Formats: sequence, structure tokens, C-alpha cells
Amino acid sequence: PPAGGLSAQSADPLPSWNEGPTKQQIVSFVEAVTDADSPDFVPEAERIAVFDNDGTLWAEQPMYIQLAFAIDRLHTLAKEKPELKEKEPYRSILNGDLKSLAAGGEHAILEVLMATHADTTTDQFSAIVADWLETARHPKTDRPYTGMVYQPMLELLAYLRASGFKTFIVSGGGVAFMRVFSEKAYGIPPEQVIGSTIVTKFEMRASGPVLVRLPKIDFIDDKEGKPVGINRNIGRRPIAAFGNSDGDLQMLQWTTAGPGRRLGAIVHHTDAEREWAYDRDSHIGRLDKALDEGRNDGWTIIDMKQDWAQVFPPRN
Amino acid sequence: PPAGGLSAQSADPLPSWNEGPTKQQIVSFVEAVTDADSPDFVPEAERIAVFDNDGTLWAEQPMYIQLAFAIDRLHTLAKEKPELKEKEPYRSILNGDLKSLAAGGEHAILEVLMATHADTTTDQFSAIVADWLETARHPKTDRPYTGMVYQPMLELLAYLRASGFKTFIVSGGGVAFMRVFSEKAYGIPPEQVIGSTIVTKFEMRASGPVLVRLPKIDFIDDKEGKPVGINRNIGRRPIAAFGNSDGDLQMLQWTTAGPGRRLGAIVHHTDAEREWAYDRDSHIGRLDKALDEGRNDGWTIIDMKQDWAQVFPPRN
Ligand SMILES: [Ca+2]
Ligand SMILES: [Ca+2]
Repeated sequence: PPAGGLSAQSADPLPSWNEGPTKQQIVSFVEAVTDADSPDFVPEAERIAVFDNDGTLWAEQPMYIQLAFAIDRLHTLAKEKPELKEKEPYRSILNGDLKSLAAGGEHAILEVLMATHADTTTDQFSAIVADWLETARHPKTDRPYTGMVYQPMLELLAYLRASGFKTFIVSGGGVAFMRVFSEKAYGIPPEQVIGSTIVTKFEMRASGPVLVRLPKIDFIDDKEGKPVGINRNIGRRPIAAFGNSDGDLQMLQWTTAGPGRRLGAIVHHTDAEREWAYDRDSHIGRLDKALDEGRNDGWTIIDMKQDWAQVFPPRN
Repeated sequence: PPAGGLSAQSADPLPSWNEGPTKQQIVSFVEAVTDADSPDFVPEAERIAVFDNDGTLWAEQPMYIQLAFAIDRLHTLAKEKPELKEKEPYRSILNGDLKSLAAGGEHAILEVLMATHADTTTDQFSAIVADWLETARHPKTDRPYTGMVYQPMLELLAYLRASGFKTFIVSGGGVAFMRVFSEKAYGIPPEQVIGSTIVTKFEMRASGPVLVRLPKIDFIDDKEGKPVGINRNIGRRPIAAFGNSDGDLQMLQWTTAGPGRRLGAIVHHTDAEREWAYDRDSHIGRLDKALDEGRNDGWTIIDMKQDWAQVFPPRN
């Protein structure tokens, strides 16, 4: 039917997706909830789709991109504060030894994130991230990090928006980091990015008001935190959720448990050649429980190797 | 010029606003930031306008509407938990004596809000608020509370949206309370409502996942909290802010201190006949410091009596 104005229905909105059940499940979901004559129709205002970021919208190997930023920033800070060079875990990291960081687990990583992400104003921090993104390159592909986004997911985001969806990021990553590139990289504006936060404080200075970032955790938007963050910033339950690890389990449960038709989907990293292959035993993006539950509950499992004709966008 | 497609430019977009400097300041701001040939032009994505709710978008006298809800809810809860009748401040409130509540100040009010707003799931709480809004009536006007919205502000919201703005509520009120009516009353969807929050917890029950509201403060979106809440949920600085009390001072400072053209505006309650007249000495919506700063800094002071041809929408 020509109504609805979905150009998506004439041309293939997902050219980087191979034909098959995965693509079919996605398209059939979108057609059902946007067709006013379908029993599954959902009014436009309620078409909320949420996306994890690391490993779902862009690559997270060999380390989270935000951690690569933190390490580069640590080198800059060590020039201003040489005492950092004497203190673990900073000393090892500055010497290029990431083993102790890995051994220290999430706690050690958090400490490094705090040390490198706080004690600036919000405007200063955004500028630091923007500068870094301009010059930093991925160690394996030598691309700018914003070139490590997944082309099929960019098409999916655009397809959903053309179908009246509002697309949100819901990530364990730092919100202030992601908001610097989310609009340009994904077409997702800052107000639709939900992530982990550190405490921020309003301060009136002689030069005017500022928001200062403090080295204190405010909110961790991961696991049980994801539905909480969704509720806090969106205030209604999404009808579609995309993740890639056990950190997305509760977001997928929360989304798919709602009434009416729902789409829960997992990006499964199965392509060691074009990207990386990892799941149950990975330290980064471990996918174990959510894979089992996804298979049992009929979530869409996106097999990167099989379902994606192309992984990354063409190089400029 | 016919470009831009602003029907706002042909018909008067603000018919309930009397002609005069106030209306002129608002219209001139909107025209400047939306005119691509103006030095003050702002791209659509950055046209963020924030509105306080109580006393700015709807009435807050003789008491905050959310407090009226809390008191009604306390009566319901007292039937289930008779022990509430023996405990202050609940005992006095249940006996219709609000003096001790007023004497107890913000702390006493917070305690009542906690006792009446927690220990439900998020879905249950929304249903309770929706039910209450259907039946409760304002003590002075006998209107449903959603009829206590200001007609000129509804026109302003619509005018801004027609001019490419995204409109947000930034209120000290509870976000879960406001989101129940914000879309219908103001055309502002839940994801554009920022407010105070209590701690919410993800819980997997036999019936499925729920979010449970706990009697513990998470965030107070008032005073210094408003720019923090804006940063947390929006992630960029608004170019226009509307408030009515000293609780909006920092939001107005934060908004107007940004580069480029900005609009800061205060609704001044000057109309004892059609609404209420109050400012520096009021317990509710006290406007003192922000009025002085607004006059000094060239913010737009909306004089309700003089600037508004009509206060409330026509009764159905
Ligand atoms: Ca992930
Ligand atoms: Ca107010």
C-alpha cells in the first residue's frame, strides 16, 4: 500500500544484511508495528528502540574504545601530574602493561576511568573527547574509531527512524563520552543517549556558571541498571532492544516482557575474519546467559558472519 | 519571507498573549534563531527549550498539585495501614490539618511524598496517578487538575515546536507523576520530562520483570539540581528557559550564559483575580532573587495580569 510514505518499502532499507531469517524477522516486526491495519500496530509515540553501544553499534575489541581514550588521556595527565607514574594501576598502564588492569577487573577499570574523566567542566571534557576522536586510530584497522561502527546497524537505525521510531543508546559506557559522537556517527542526538554517569556539580564562577565533573560514581547503566536508566530517561518501555552481551540481559527481558509485539535481538560476534569471534569466554562483551535465554525466548540472534554482507562502512 | 514554512508567521501563534514588549521579545527571539539568514540562527537540533512545571505551565496554588495527590493517596493508604493514623505528620494531615505540614517545611513534605509515592511498581504508580487525575478536582475552580494549565503557555509550547524546538519539562516535581499527563496536557512526551526521582530497582518476579519504587531519594531536580538534570537527560545547553521561582534561578543562569542568542523568562504571578498574586513572600513558588537577577540581566518578565489575555483554557 502506498500509504505511510515508507520509502523503506520500495527500496531495500537494509542492503548490508544478507537475505535470511534474521533480516526477515526484523523487517516483519517493523512492518507489523507500523501497519495501521495490523493487530500489532503501535502508535508512533510509543515506537521506542534501544541499542547497546559497545559491541552492538561499534567494535569493542581489542578493548573498549572508551578505555583506549582513558589510557591516552592518562599519558597526557601524567605530564601534568608526574605522581601518577608512581602509583598503581597507573604506573603499569603508562608502561604499556595492561595485564594488571585486566587482572584488577571492573574495579581497576573504573578507577582509571574516574582518574581520567573527572576534574574538568562538562564543556572541557567534551572538547577533550572531540580532539581525541579526531586523531586516535584503531590499533588493528588504523581507522578513526568512529569508522569502527557497524554498517548494517547504521542502516537499521535509519530504517527504524524512517519507520517512525525514536532510537536511543542505552550503554554501560560513559554518557559524556558517547554524546560527543553519537549524533554524527549514528544520527542519535545527545538527549537520546543514556549511559553511566559520574556526579556533576553546578558551580557559579567569576566567568559564569559551569558544571564540574567529580570523581564519584553517580549511576552504572549496566545489567539491572539498564531498565532503571531507561525508566529514568525515557519513562516508557521500549518495544525493541538490541544488545550483544550479558550486560544487556535485563534490558532485553524488560523490553520483551511488555504487552504486544516486541523485538529482542542480540548481535553475536561470530566473524573472526572481518571482525572478532567471541562469546561465552570473553572478558569483553561476555555473552553467555543472554545467548541461552535469547535462544529459548525467541529473540533474534544476529549472526555477524552469516547475516552481514558488510561489517564496517567503506573507508573514506 | 515565505521560506521556512512557519505558518506561525502568517497567523498569530500566540493569540492569548496581549500585544506588548513581552510577546514581542518572545517572537523576536524565535524569529531570530529560526531565520537561516540571521546572525543568531541556531540549527534545529540545538533548539532546546526547557520549562519549569508548577507555576510555569500549570497552577501551584493553594498547594502543589502533586501534594494534593499525595494527601488523597494518604487517605487511601490509611485504610490499608491504619497505623498511619497514629503517626505524625500523617495524623494531622488525615484530620485535615495542614498547618504542621507547612511548619515542617520541605522535609515534612518530602516525607509525605515518600510515604505515598513508593512501594509500588512503576506501572502500578502510573495507573494510580491516572485514576486520580480522572476524578480529582481543584478546590477553587472545581476543574480537573489538567484544566489548570495556562493557555498562553500551551500556545507558546506549540509555537516553539512549530519553529523546530524540542520542548522539555525540567521540574522539581516527581518525574513519574508528571509523565502520566505531560503528553496529553502539554504535548511533551515522557522522554522529554525531567524531574525529581526516587530510587527504582529492577526485580525479576514470577510474573515477569518489574521496576519497584523505593522510599529513597535518588535526585532532587531543583535549584542547582536543574542544570545537573538538564545535563544528565539532555546533554546540551538549552537556548530558552522558562521558570517562575527561585528554584529556577540556576536553570536560567545556565541557559542564558551560553554563547549566542538566548531567552530567559519568568512567569510573574500578578493576577489575584484570574489566578493568584504572589512572589517574594510566598511559601509556594517564592520568587525573589530570580526576579532581581532577571530584571538586571534582561530576562523576559511575563506579567500574568498584563501580558495574558486569557489564563486557563476554556472549560469543556
Ligand atoms: Ca555491549
Ligand atoms: Ca515552579
